[in-house]
Amino acid sequence: MTYCVGVKLESGLIFASDSRTHAGVDDYAKFCKMTVLDKAGERVIVLLSSGSLAGTQTVVSLLRRRGETEPKNVWNAESMFDVATLVSDAMRDVGRRDTPFLAESGLKFNASFIVGGQIGKEPMRLFRIYAEGNFIEAGTDTAFFQTGETKYGKPILDRVIAPDATLDDASKCVLVSFDSTMRSNLSVGMPIDMLCYERDSLKVRLRKRFDKGDAYFNALSDQWGTGTRQVFRQLPVLEW
Amino acid sequence: MTYCVGVKLESGLIFASDSRTHAGVDDYAKFCKMTVLDKAGERVIVLLSSGSLAGTQTVVSLLRRRGETEPKNVWNAESMFDVATLVSDAMRDVGRRDTPFLAESGLKFNASFIVGGQIGKEPMRLFRIYAEGNFIEAGTDTAFFQTGETKYGKPILDRVIAPDATLDDASKCVLVSFDSTMRSNLSVGMPIDMLCYERDSLKVRLRKRFDKGDAYFNALSDQWGTGTRQVFRQLPVLEW
Repeated sequence: MTYCVGVKLESGLIFASDSRTHAGVDDYAKFCKMTVLDKAGERVIVLLSSGSLAGTQTVVSLLRRRGETEPKNVWNAESMFDVATLVSDAMRDVGRRDTPFLAESGLKFNASFIVGGQIGKEPMRLFRIYAEGNFIEAGTDTAFFQTGETKYGKPILDRVIAPDATLDDASKCVLVSFDSTMRSNLSVGMPIDMLCYERDSLKVRLRKRFDKGDAYFNALSDQWGTGTRQVFRQLPVLEW
Repeated sequence: MTYCVGVKLESGLIFASDSRTHAGVDDYAKFCKMTVLDKAGERVIVLLSSGSLAGTQTVVSLLRRRGETEPKNVWNAESMFDVATLVSDAMRDVGRRDTPFLAESGLKFNASFIVGGQIGKEPMRLFRIYAEGNFIEAGTDTAFFQTGETKYGKPILDRVIAPDATLDDASKCVLVSFDSTMRSNLSVGMPIDMLCYERDSLKVRLRKRFDKGDAYFNALSDQWGTGTRQVFRQLPVLEW
């Protein structure tokens, strides 16, 4: 499984992904699911990948390769909408190539992405691209997208994430959401890659990897656990 | 969808179920999913049903009918294990009757239950019966079972429910779990039926239905939301 979150706030974007991939519980490994394509002062593009690693890695490689060989590519796209379309095109090309062979084993091509960032003077944008290559964009009503094991970590996002949340609060919230998810689903695992993009900065300044034993993550997890149990204890007792 | 929780503590059992059934978002209704079969001083048996309403209602009707007509039934079973087996038998009988006709519409027989209670001097027991009729029993390592939309409401159960939790705490916790679930999944809805069985009492003393606008449930929901947001604000800020 996988857990990825992309958040769009008034003040910036937050991206986070776990690193666990597996083909059954007897075969799991660590792979970074975050790809950053940036040129300071001009563009910051972040991709979070979910689904079959063979599919998502090939899509990312193809995007990078086309960045060098094709006239229209992620390095000269004028809009994040064009970037989402380029990712979608790459997904469909890889899908066309792999689908017949996967079908022989009863498998489907399965790769999907959260893509966000900012290019030049265009406002920041955030997209969720489905495995079929069609996509939706975050507006003000829905300020975040999740992929993979989305349910355990959604209640805290629902409570805290709103467009006017601060980047500090939203970053903490996303980490708490990962904590809840990893407690309940073994197939989501550390390290967590996290990137916080500040609006109109057009550069990546805040990026961090939280690995097992990370002091900040452990403190967050402990304080959240202790704090919620305390809130819980103070709730009124039910009068039957 | 459905959300049901059965909890087994040292001091008693807790059962809770939502009341929403639907065949698509354009066709939803309210049905109680909790069945109580009790004879004070002798036995308390509680069933929580999930799956197709046609299936679960028929199973419950059959159990009641067999309670009047069959020599071995829920009213004279000497053990909760025997009760789980009677439920399983009824499920399989209904399944055999309905499966060929459901299959014509591409459907599967789909009914499952959480069954718990206490009979005479036997300790309290709690079972989860799968749609196939096989079942598992809660021990000390796993103190609760959920069915239906289980994920949104699981993190709080994981944090609070342990065999030595009090009935008061566990009741509150189950309601908070329902609150989180109903916030995220429209197909789980009020009223919530809740029953708290006190160990060795062999009678049902604590039972309540929480309907929309219930003052206690609203207070719980508000205080939990406010409290967790406050805990959240006090979490340490991430130093990038």
